[in-house]
Amino acid sequence: MVKLAIDAMGGDHAPREIIKGVQLALARFSDVEFLLFGVEKEIAPHFAGEERVKIIHCSDVIDMGEQDPIGAVRKGKDSSLVRAFRAVRDKEASGVVSAGPTQGVVAAAHLVIRRIRGMKRVAICPTLPELGGKRRLLLDVGANTELRSEHLLQLAQFASIYAREVMGVENPLVGLLNIGTEPGKGRELENETHELLKNDPNVNFYGNVEGKELFTTDCDILLTDGFTGNMVLKTCEGVARAVGNFLKEEINTFGKKIGYLFMRKVFKKFKKTMSPDEIGGANLFGVDGIVVKAHGSSDAYAFSNAIRQARLAVLGDVVEKMKKIIGDGSDE
Amino acid sequence: MVKLAIDAMGGDHAPREIIKGVQLALARFSDVEFLLFGVEKEIAPHFAGEERVKIIHCSDVIDMGEQDPIGAVRKGKDSSLVRAFRAVRDKEASGVVSAGPTQGVVAAAHLVIRRIRGMKRVAICPTLPELGGKRRLLLDVGANTELRSEHLLQLAQFASIYAREVMGVENPLVGLLNIGTEPGKGRELENETHELLKNDPNVNFYGNVEGKELFTTDCDILLTDGFTGNMVLKTCEGVARAVGNFLKEEINTFGKKIGYLFMRKVFKKFKKTMSPDEIGGANLFGVDGIVVKAHGSSDAYAFSNAIRQARLAVLGDVVEKMKKIIGDGSDE
Repeated sequence: MVKLAIDAMGGDHAPREIIKGVQLALARFSDVEFLLFGVEKEIAPHFAGEERVKIIHCSDVIDMGEQDPIGAVRKGKDSSLVRAFRAVRDKEASGVVSAGPTQGVVAAAHLVIRRIRGMKRVAICPTLPELGGKRRLLLDVGANTELRSEHLLQLAQFASIYAREVMGVENPLVGLLNIGTEPGKGRELENETHELLKNDPNVNFYGNVEGKELFTTDCDILLTDGFTGNMVLKTCEGVARAVGNFLKEEINTFGKKIGYLFMRKVFKKFKKTMSPDEIGGANLFGVDGIVVKAHGSSDAYAFSNAIRQARLAVLGDVVEKMKKIIGDGSDE
Repeated sequence: MVKLAIDAMGGDHAPREIIKGVQLALARFSDVEFLLFGVEKEIAPHFAGEERVKIIHCSDVIDMGEQDPIGAVRKGKDSSLVRAFRAVRDKEASGVVSAGPTQGVVAAAHLVIRRIRGMKRVAICPTLPELGGKRRLLLDVGANTELRSEHLLQLAQFASIYAREVMGVENPLVGLLNIGTEPGKGRELENETHELLKNDPNVNFYGNVEGKELFTTDCDILLTDGFTGNMVLKTCEGVARAVGNFLKEEINTFGKKIGYLFMRKVFKKFKKTMSPDEIGGANLFGVDGIVVKAHGSSDAYAFSNAIRQARLAVLGDVVEKMKKIIGDGSDE
């Protein structure tokens, strides 16, 4: 059985959609057991007689609008978020899923579970929308505003294991985001990282990848520092939103004409393609346990997909496989 | 009269589309005179009897695929690119337009015309596609992989003058690209720049702008270092391309149905909206003369728009206005 800890109070629509998401996951996956952390009287009635769910009451909740989520994690020892992460630290669960505030999740990963021994940084790694017919990981998207080349190397190794074990890609191809394809382009960071990736036996390195190839490149993993990754990810979101508005306007132009129905169909499909709900959530790579950060606005379906993702990462044993690579390192 | 130097041999479709573009500009703008640099026998027949065009023969051409455009500029003293830039340096023309390789244009701007005295960096500044119904400048997109806060301040001042004089925006709003909207977000660069922009009398500072607001923000100018700007710009291109492919697929799905015609119309409009041809070209800010880099794939219409842009910048006297601000600086 895969044991997962769930922060039942995190997310814009918590606990309602989290509860429904867990119910959905119970139906979808017969090999998962849940520890649900949250306000018991709100949660318990929904899981009466369910043997695969255990509810642990927490009096405290970290608010989605919390101005200082890191401070809240430090202080909120009885919050549903911190308690769920503590279950992973104490080996009561192999992974944790939360739709709570990103910074709170990153802080709890660092402060409660901690990094894998020898792993120098933790990264947030979402999956890009499947626009080009292929799923691609992008990291880091904001856990660290700056990274050094040796950090990027470790993150590339971790992402490669993840893509192999969870996404079923046999020999995942890693691309380094850069402002030109030729070696020697970019900043010192890109040049140093290029050199490290090229020579690492654990990484199948493609070379530099430009922003315009984001949805056409053969790469499965796109690597960059947290500042750049965040700008790139949110730019995708911005363009998608603008294109969505553009299509919506066109629909209005058609008014009640015949084309209206066709356009609506296309618009709906586009929205579904770009939606993070289809993917589940972002992974936290580098933590000594599986951590999935579901989108804050997750509905039940999206949250069940985040659970699916955590389940696959646990079954794929990605943390232990990364520990083996780090153990191989000569200077650890 | 506005005198512009034209690199007639630069661009994927040179000299044919450049010649046609100049012909188009002659018809569109009665107040512009041209110095055309290129292979005389290819150009002259197209401008017989045209008083507003002077052709200057150059034997050398910097190839679009040139591996070392900077070296080519240093060595290619008789290339059409270098000669056109020299015309601006020697005050024979007020501005230059080239569809040649970007790195060559940036190198010629630096080495031939040179920066405005006191201006510390030159930046490439294109206009974003008008997806959200508003034109916005983005800089730097790659002239400098790294910039310091004082460089970004000067570039914000220059862009503000440009937006006022050329785009007709009365009090242009400047946004700093960042990974969060609150002050204190981002790297040291963003924090220092935030402080400088906030206190500068020549800049109407909005604050931080995230990638997802790129096409919805009220800002007229979006400021960042050349690495980030290049990633953001090319990511827009990548998403647009992927969305274009998505729409194309939908069209194929509709086959010969009635919706097909509607979809085709929407697809064409989308392509036009995202096309750089509508805008003209990217500006080089900080050079002691007007430099417009037209898109390499420019056709006649796109090139005439790049000419339009150079004409407006000359008429707006943006370089002299920037010199006044730099003159005000206490430490220059």
